[in-house]
Amino acid sequence: MNYPILIKVLGILLTIEALGMVPSLLISIYYSSNDVFAFLISIAINLIVGFTMFRIPVKKKDIKIKEALSIVSIGWVLISIFGAVPLVISGSVPSFVDAIFEMVSGFTTTGATIINDIEVLPRGILFWRSFSHWIGGMGILVFTVAILPALGVGSYQIFKAESPGPIADRIVPRIKDTAKILYIFYISLTILEIILLKFGGMGLYESIVHTFGTVGTGGFSTRNGSIGAFNSSYITIVISIFMILSGISFSLYYQLSKGNWREVFKDEELRLFLSIIGICVLVITFNIGGNLGRSLKDALFQVTSIISTTGYGTVDFNEWPTLSKAILFMLMFIGGCAGSTGGGIKNIRILVLLKLIKREISKIFHPRAVIHVKVNERVLSSDVLASIMSFFALYIFIFIIGTIIISLEGIGLVSSSSAVAASIGNIGPGFDFVGPTNTFSQFSQLSKLFLSFLMLFGRLELFTMLILFSPKFWKDEI
Amino acid sequence: MNYPILIKVLGILLTIEALGMVPSLLISIYYSSNDVFAFLISIAINLIVGFTMFRIPVKKKDIKIKEALSIVSIGWVLISIFGAVPLVISGSVPSFVDAIFEMVSGFTTTGATIINDIEVLPRGILFWRSFSHWIGGMGILVFTVAILPALGVGSYQIFKAESPGPIADRIVPRIKDTAKILYIFYISLTILEIILLKFGGMGLYESIVHTFGTVGTGGFSTRNGSIGAFNSSYITIVISIFMILSGISFSLYYQLSKGNWREVFKDEELRLFLSIIGICVLVITFNIGGNLGRSLKDALFQVTSIISTTGYGTVDFNEWPTLSKAILFMLMFIGGCAGSTGGGIKNIRILVLLKLIKREISKIFHPRAVIHVKVNERVLSSDVLASIMSFFALYIFIFIIGTIIISLEGIGLVSSSSAVAASIGNIGPGFDFVGPTNTFSQFSQLSKLFLSFLMLFGRLELFTMLILFSPKFWKDEI
Repeated sequence: MNYPILIKVLGILLTIEALGMVPSLLISIYYSSNDVFAFLISIAINLIVGFTMFRIPVKKKDIKIKEALSIVSIGWVLISIFGAVPLVISGSVPSFVDAIFEMVSGFTTTGATIINDIEVLPRGILFWRSFSHWIGGMGILVFTVAILPALGVGSYQIFKAESPGPIADRIVPRIKDTAKILYIFYISLTILEIILLKFGGMGLYESIVHTFGTVGTGGFSTRNGSIGAFNSSYITIVISIFMILSGISFSLYYQLSKGNWREVFKDEELRLFLSIIGICVLVITFNIGGNLGRSLKDALFQVTSIISTTGYGTVDFNEWPTLSKAILFMLMFIGGCAGSTGGGIKNIRILVLLKLIKREISKIFHPRAVIHVKVNERVLSSDVLASIMSFFALYIFIFIIGTIIISLEGIGLVSSSSAVAASIGNIGPGFDFVGPTNTFSQFSQLSKLFLSFLMLFGRLELFTMLILFSPKFWKDEI
Repeated sequence: MNYPILIKVLGILLTIEALGMVPSLLISIYYSSNDVFAFLISIAINLIVGFTMFRIPVKKKDIKIKEALSIVSIGWVLISIFGAVPLVISGSVPSFVDAIFEMVSGFTTTGATIINDIEVLPRGILFWRSFSHWIGGMGILVFTVAILPALGVGSYQIFKAESPGPIADRIVPRIKDTAKILYIFYISLTILEIILLKFGGMGLYESIVHTFGTVGTGGFSTRNGSIGAFNSSYITIVISIFMILSGISFSLYYQLSKGNWREVFKDEELRLFLSIIGICVLVITFNIGGNLGRSLKDALFQVTSIISTTGYGTVDFNEWPTLSKAILFMLMFIGGCAGSTGGGIKNIRILVLLKLIKREISKIFHPRAVIHVKVNERVLSSDVLASIMSFFALYIFIFIIGTIIISLEGIGLVSSSSAVAASIGNIGPGFDFVGPTNTFSQFSQLSKLFLSFLMLFGRLELFTMLILFSPKFWKDEI
């Protein structure tokens, strides 16, 4: 392991985070809230530590797969820890573990909170929490679409597993250009939603904060009642639409901008994603009953919020009938599309698994036939298939082991399992004990750290974090 | 589809079932219970229908994959329906749907019951219920180890997925001989357990009935309190041991009889199975606390009961702490070893999935390397791997869809999901609403049929039943 380069790059990351805190500082100055000092100190800490790390002498400048994976995993942990400093100093979240949980939840775009009364927090802090969603969402786009393929075939496999038919290739050959194009769409979506929310009567500050939560598929709000607090059908529908848009692969927007409507329309992952949303909205609408328009609106919002892994709420779906809850629980696992800011297993993997099952049935009757699995008319190699299937198995295994560990809290199976599913899938709220009207504050410190860890696990597509636990990784044996 | 041969073979099956009812008839005559008439009528019905079907003129005598799979799936449904007749006629289970549920649960060796008071039922009926476990367990051994490989490479794939390194080959070349050897061990285990239970003070009748429930990994009892009613440490431990023995691949007994101790000791699936049991027993023992000896005994019994998919109970594990319940829930999915009478996903598949995950990590660092997945030093082909992974995905998908459907009952997520897991895994009891002190009687008729269907699905390794739902299958297009 080339530790000097690792430390140097992480130093750059912390310096960038200091810059990322500047907008929050400006907000706190503008509103003269009491968190100005907290941001000044935090920025100073980030700059000092970051700059010191940056100045480490580096002999070899090459970043191999190993260094790259370490940078990504350790980097996410570091920015969460340093990002927690303003929360602690300002007194908003006195416990450092709680603050780390909150910031991991922010950067991984999970949106689970340990803060019981959000509304008393200063505006700068609230802005910083939600801005971490936006940074995290952007980071994920770069990470999955731009950086990973650059690391060579090895991590290219991880990337391909997420998006068969390399998206990077599909867009433009150079990674830097790809990232740039993705940012343009990400920023455009952001600006568009801010305008639409503002137009609907939401204040500019809250429009921006909730837009961060939507396009990053995060879910932090400024209100204890989440989106429900605004009590506006217009806002509910606008956010529903933007949650869907943020759960779609961003490469499709590039295709759209090139006028390739046909390709977007025929995209199999998009079709699956929209079909699942459509069916689930219909079933839940009729299951919860009552006024049709209202039920439809609530069902649409909650389905899109969970499947996009945002986690905003307009109603307490914990009170819904078991059928609707079971459907939402399933959606926690499906998640968004590959190459979006959404988490979960991702629709492309579900699609491929369904095709594999179909192939298995065909094989019973045509045992000698070689039957390819295709997505969007591209044949998937057996390596990609193995990757996707291992991911699925690992996801389920981590979910089960995680549930067993969290069940030590003695909060019942539904609470334990949904807290774990909501963390690993980067959703936010779960059921019962962690339902939309509750927070994660009642968990023990150890459980909070474990759940934070699960959020990172889910966000970095499992394997990136998992290799850090391989002793061989640190002994330079691989 | 060659319908005449299908009907003819099913006719033979019903005739054999008539013979299978004879011991129950003798029991009811011996105890002069009021179900003699019910068995006489049922045997007559089976013989008349069976013989009529058997006499259908058959032009072509060849059984291809298609016919074989139809025989197996429809056969299991038919023997359950006809097996339900004595329960209805004797008045033990007045509702025909309930009786079908009970017999599907019997033949699939699930052991879920809709009977609230078992102890009032006549002895012949109780014997027949439990005998169905024994027949089912035997049927599964033949089905997975003897018949499937005989059907050509297609179904051979299903078989190989269940047991890498064809067991049939490992034992003796001829299928008939393999089946015979397996029966010898099955019958030996049966006789041995009857003797040991009788020795422990259980009456001969109950020793036989509970042995059927154990070696078939079924779980039907003659007592409302299941094995707990006997209040005997000796019986608890004997049954625990036999549940483990019944959850082990029967091919290992053949190896043992040949003196291949080494091969058995090194068997990776066996090691995983025993390790899981050991770890879970330890954790649960300390989690439930109290008197160490008693906790250990309870933990051992419940862990072996669930992982072997038997479902007997000595305590109400529904009252256990969440951690212990979460572990038991996980064990419902793992199940026994391939080539045993146990259900679930099976340890061999879990083992292979873990190895695939490990390979995926290695691939990150050695992207161009061809890394084989081996079990017991045999390399698994990519076809077998795809089979195992598709099975796992399908199992999870059916579990999720099943839970959503059963959640229409409005009984909560834990009850719904554990009822589905207990049915598809052929275990029996679940949690809460379907916990060990409850029965499945409160479900609607439709849900009972659906759960019966899930038991068959699980028992026949998913794909066998799934293909019946393919329209192409019936249109002769495949």
